[in-house]
Amino acid sequence: MMPDDSSSGHALTAAMAWPGVIEAYRDFLPVTAATPVVTLQEGRTPLIPSKRLGARLGLRLFFKFEAANPTGSFKDRGMTVAVSKALEAGSRAVVCASTGNTAASAAAYAARASLPCVIVLPADGVAAGKLGQVVAHGARVVAVEAGFDAALAATRELAARAGLTLVNSVNPYRLEGQKTVAFEIVDALGRAPDLLVLPVGNGGNITACWRGFQEYRQAGRLTALPQMVGVQAEGAAPLVDGHPVTSPRTVATAIRIGRPASWEGAVEAARASGGRFVKVADDAILAARRELAAGEGLLVEPASAAALAGLQLLAAARPFSGEVAVCILTGHGLKDPPPLAPSLLPTVARTVEALSTVVERLLA
Amino acid sequence: MMPDDSSSGHALTAAMAWPGVIEAYRDFLPVTAATPVVTLQEGRTPLIPSKRLGARLGLRLFFKFEAANPTGSFKDRGMTVAVSKALEAGSRAVVCASTGNTAASAAAYAARASLPCVIVLPADGVAAGKLGQVVAHGARVVAVEAGFDAALAATRELAARAGLTLVNSVNPYRLEGQKTVAFEIVDALGRAPDLLVLPVGNGGNITACWRGFQEYRQAGRLTALPQMVGVQAEGAAPLVDGHPVTSPRTVATAIRIGRPASWEGAVEAARASGGRFVKVADDAILAARRELAAGEGLLVEPASAAALAGLQLLAAARPFSGEVAVCILTGHGLKDPPPLAPSLLPTVARTVEALSTVVERLLA
Repeated sequence: MMPDDSSSGHALTAAMAWPGVIEAYRDFLPVTAATPVVTLQEGRTPLIPSKRLGARLGLRLFFKFEAANPTGSFKDRGMTVAVSKALEAGSRAVVCASTGNTAASAAAYAARASLPCVIVLPADGVAAGKLGQVVAHGARVVAVEAGFDAALAATRELAARAGLTLVNSVNPYRLEGQKTVAFEIVDALGRAPDLLVLPVGNGGNITACWRGFQEYRQAGRLTALPQMVGVQAEGAAPLVDGHPVTSPRTVATAIRIGRPASWEGAVEAARASGGRFVKVADDAILAARRELAAGEGLLVEPASAAALAGLQLLAAARPFSGEVAVCILTGHGLKDPPPLAPSLLPTVARTVEALSTVVERLLA
Repeated sequence: MMPDDSSSGHALTAAMAWPGVIEAYRDFLPVTAATPVVTLQEGRTPLIPSKRLGARLGLRLFFKFEAANPTGSFKDRGMTVAVSKALEAGSRAVVCASTGNTAASAAAYAARASLPCVIVLPADGVAAGKLGQVVAHGARVVAVEAGFDAALAATRELAARAGLTLVNSVNPYRLEGQKTVAFEIVDALGRAPDLLVLPVGNGGNITACWRGFQEYRQAGRLTALPQMVGVQAEGAAPLVDGHPVTSPRTVATAIRIGRPASWEGAVEAARASGGRFVKVADDAILAARRELAAGEGLLVEPASAAALAGLQLLAAARPFSGEVAVCILTGHGLKDPPPLAPSLLPTVARTVEALSTVVERLLA
């Protein structure tokens, strides 16, 4: 089936073409024949076997590399559904409060749909680099003099009052689309993993993922459900600590959230699956990111590495014994590149002799 | 078939799993059962139908979104083959001269293979941001006091002298892997496009892509071959101008090359296919990038947008009439984000009233 071509008259066959998550999992999603599908062919991301970290942990470990989605993060799965439904409903514009992956995804899908998009930023969290991505997609950006929680509250009220479609994860279509990551993992493995490990900020992804596994079991596509393990950063661990955190702090900006919007769903996923929440230190997150990059060839944003750090913490407490585990790597490292100290860089004259000497030293 | 798992004992079935380009196209590649396959499940990238730019140009236009590869660029297709063959040959380390996509890809695949990797940088072209990606993968980096051409020459000599495997595009395995993009386009469309348009720097990609179409024709997988259109930047257009450029200049850093390593292959691809080379101004490249981001939802690096700018130039000279065209979008915009002037950002107090007023103005 050709993807997303109803408006352009393409009639080429396409045996190998992937139509995006809505067409691939239409029976499981709240769409009808009347829904205009807005897709960038998100999904069908690689499930990459661990080369060495898994064996070290005593696991058969896989990485679901969500960084391969079109805007570089897992958010695209939910955004294709949310923006398609907004278009179907005749929305005049979509809006979200975000400084990061959600904003980038909303801006890209709104551009694809020719829907105006407004991004509301907390004024104290503006990173010019990430904003460039949003503005390039034609989104309008406004900063409010507030932290993230207050910015989101104002944005929710704005959306209700002004008739805009809110596409933060409180939009129920977002979670519907995000659950497709569970479908793909089962389709690729032929079963669910024993452990599903992922970073938890707002709690939407773990809620959606658990829903996906349950729906696939109801459909007879799997028998045993996975244990859901949600990993938070020590400075932003409300679900571990059992209460909201007023001033969340962590290097993993994508999970720097003190008051998860999907608190109940997240708690239920961990409880019902026999899983749990764990928290990891920023140092462990950054070390896990280095191990993924240098040991597996996968560069991810810090929040993604928290999943591996969580597994390492569990393994230290009680050794694994060959379980099948999947870590969801939620976003690309290009979104938040590791810093480099330029002073580390040796510089040599242009002679091959000089170059050889330095290279042999580097390889020694 | 499970990807890349020979060393880790995985034995799960995986109907949907993609094994990377070597396993997918093994019959067309210089590998044997003895070749250790080093893969990050590169390839199988989306072929996304244009939403509006194609209709405006009179084309049935598709974008091959190579940004979805694991390190964010098309280079991963060639690197999986080059690094696998280096490992098979017992290489002690891989080396390349690069400041950008090649370096990132080499570093990631070498990490996956547990092979040491050395990146040689021209000292005048060091961008700390891109280097972060390379260093994160554990590559050793050295800068030489020279421009790119001299740095590459020194690196070639170093590789020969020190027994290192050079993985610049002069490594023949690189082009073998890169040709798989042509296979995927044909597999998705059920035919070759009438026009295949791509940015040309060193000339390796157009050479490889043309080879791929020819091999698929020999194998009976397509009948009509495409015209190959190579797009260069005005300040770095040796193949259009017919002579090397001493000081190439363009915002599209990935094609800022004055002396293409695959000159003959590139010229032959354009000639034999009835295609051509065109050059486009930096302004046109940046405008095309904005159109792709705001009109199609696709954010790419400037070199990728040159392909669209080239098509626009051709359409202005002679209208198209419904041809099937594919633009290869070679790298992700996250690698080279568009700049943002922070002064453009309106900031409001945290009241919903203030926010509403600004948002209505932005949407007007």
